[in-house]
Amino acid sequence: MQASAGAAAGAELLLGIGDDASVVGASGVCVTSVDAMVEGTHFRLQEGFSEPSEVGHRALAGALSDLAAMGARPGEAYFVLGLPGGFSEQQALELMRAAAALARDTGTVIAGGDVVAAPILIVSVTAVGWAAGADALLTRAGARDGDLVGVTGNLGAAAAALAQMEGRAPRSAAGAGALARAAAPVPRLSEGLALAAEGAHAMIDLSDGLATDAAQLAARSGVRLELQLGDLPLADGVVEVAGALEVEPWRLAAGGGEDYELCFTAAPADRERLEQALTRAGGVGVSWIGTVRAGPPGLVLLDGEGRRVQLEGYEHRW
Amino acid sequence: MQASAGAAAGAELLLGIGDDASVVGASGVCVTSVDAMVEGTHFRLQEGFSEPSEVGHRALAGALSDLAAMGARPGEAYFVLGLPGGFSEQQALELMRAAAALARDTGTVIAGGDVVAAPILIVSVTAVGWAAGADALLTRAGARDGDLVGVTGNLGAAAAALAQMEGRAPRSAAGAGALARAAAPVPRLSEGLALAAEGAHAMIDLSDGLATDAAQLAARSGVRLELQLGDLPLADGVVEVAGALEVEPWRLAAGGGEDYELCFTAAPADRERLEQALTRAGGVGVSWIGTVRAGPPGLVLLDGEGRRVQLEGYEHRW
Repeated sequence: MQASAGAAAGAELLLGIGDDASVVGASGVCVTSVDAMVEGTHFRLQEGFSEPSEVGHRALAGALSDLAAMGARPGEAYFVLGLPGGFSEQQALELMRAAAALARDTGTVIAGGDVVAAPILIVSVTAVGWAAGADALLTRAGARDGDLVGVTGNLGAAAAALAQMEGRAPRSAAGAGALARAAAPVPRLSEGLALAAEGAHAMIDLSDGLATDAAQLAARSGVRLELQLGDLPLADGVVEVAGALEVEPWRLAAGGGEDYELCFTAAPADRERLEQALTRAGGVGVSWIGTVRAGPPGLVLLDGEGRRVQLEGYEHRW
Repeated sequence: MQASAGAAAGAELLLGIGDDASVVGASGVCVTSVDAMVEGTHFRLQEGFSEPSEVGHRALAGALSDLAAMGARPGEAYFVLGLPGGFSEQQALELMRAAAALARDTGTVIAGGDVVAAPILIVSVTAVGWAAGADALLTRAGARDGDLVGVTGNLGAAAAALAQMEGRAPRSAAGAGALARAAAPVPRLSEGLALAAEGAHAMIDLSDGLATDAAQLAARSGVRLELQLGDLPLADGVVEVAGALEVEPWRLAAGGGEDYELCFTAAPADRERLEQALTRAGGVGVSWIGTVRAGPPGLVLLDGEGRRVQLEGYEHRW
């Protein structure tokens, strides 16, 4: 067999698109996530909603975000495109160009795929990452009594964008920041690597919304997470859109999906070291939003006055 | 990180379904194929067409067939299911049970997936295989002047089944064999491993039809393939269905997709050794259907009288 293409980060692509399968030189452990976006469920293509380029970016970002949540180095991505008759070759190229740009930015090689006819646009991405060993990775299961709960970046952009696109809140100068952020989420790969390397205990990415995803982490770790909703870091435009919706801003930050920030837990003694590691990694900042307690597994959300709040996670509404 | 599940063939699954991504102990080379089946394009669910179990089996078989065509050992499979509102949980279970049965039969571990809402049924499978090194694999690119062209098993079952399901040919006792074979194609994994180990030169699986796939192999190898259509091995029922359609049986055998047999080339001196290796592997038999010539790359199809025939490959008609 002949080598036919360049090297990926952490693994070498030996045979890419054009044969029955792709071949990658492997070592350590292989970390794999699949993530699908379906027109009508995850995005709309009509005027005022998503462009093809946004769909390509978001599909890859969502799959890479799962690798970030494990602390894996990104390696290869494989794309399944289901293309409807009305979707032009030009649109398909725009979609894949945006995906290729994000792949380049993250050191990911698009190594294979499948294109099929479909009645609606479908983009399914398999993202493969690599690590030296399983011990180098973080799961959802390691949170411990006494840990702090941290979150990267800012929350609520996706929910604030959705409210504007659906016309539930007016588009505004402030809200434009949320729209831009939601159209091009950034998988927190360097942050995930740094947090795994520096001894965080458990991690998950926020794809379904903090209220849903933190509950998953709590369940898998067998602990209780208490989050202070008033401490949630808010993305640009969230306060303004929440005002128009007449809800507290933390409802968008904790209830909206697809922000793709990382939620993790760590020992209080490691707090400063983790913050410094994130700074060195060139990553976004961290906010400390709660604590881990022993006791019946579950999630407790407390508002600014310390009252317990019920909040459902993100439900795809399209 | 804790190990959480059993071992795959050739790789160890360290973390399976339930976290952000799956983790597999890796060595050698990783061989990856993605393959999607979409309702209305690749199958129909109404009466007289496909059952959910057939869709699950065929989706995994198609992805594993690509690994067979490389000579890779199967390792893990990842499923994306797009489920429409009218598709019941019971049907989804039937689909995945059939996939799990094929996974078990082939030593494949279903290691992860994603389930999303969709307007039609979508099954996208990522199949990952393993080999000691790239040198142990076969590509489409190695065919040489003077090679023989071989094909495993029998051809035409998928096309003969389609003709019956669409009512273009009557259902018959003879045709039932083709229907059964088309509903549960067998990826030729042991055959692919044996052919790669014993020195075949190039290989491809027949997913789009021999006329299309052999042309791909010819193009990638830069050679001319001459195939004798009268020598094609015919699946049960193909002669009878072709009779009802008033076409030569080789039109179904060379033009129909999804038979998932392997087409390969090998030196004439290796013919007997390869046949013995396939017998030892417990695999299906081989038929020798043509030769490789130097010259302008392409495919030449010759009928029983040595006349050149034009034949289009399989086009999905649903």
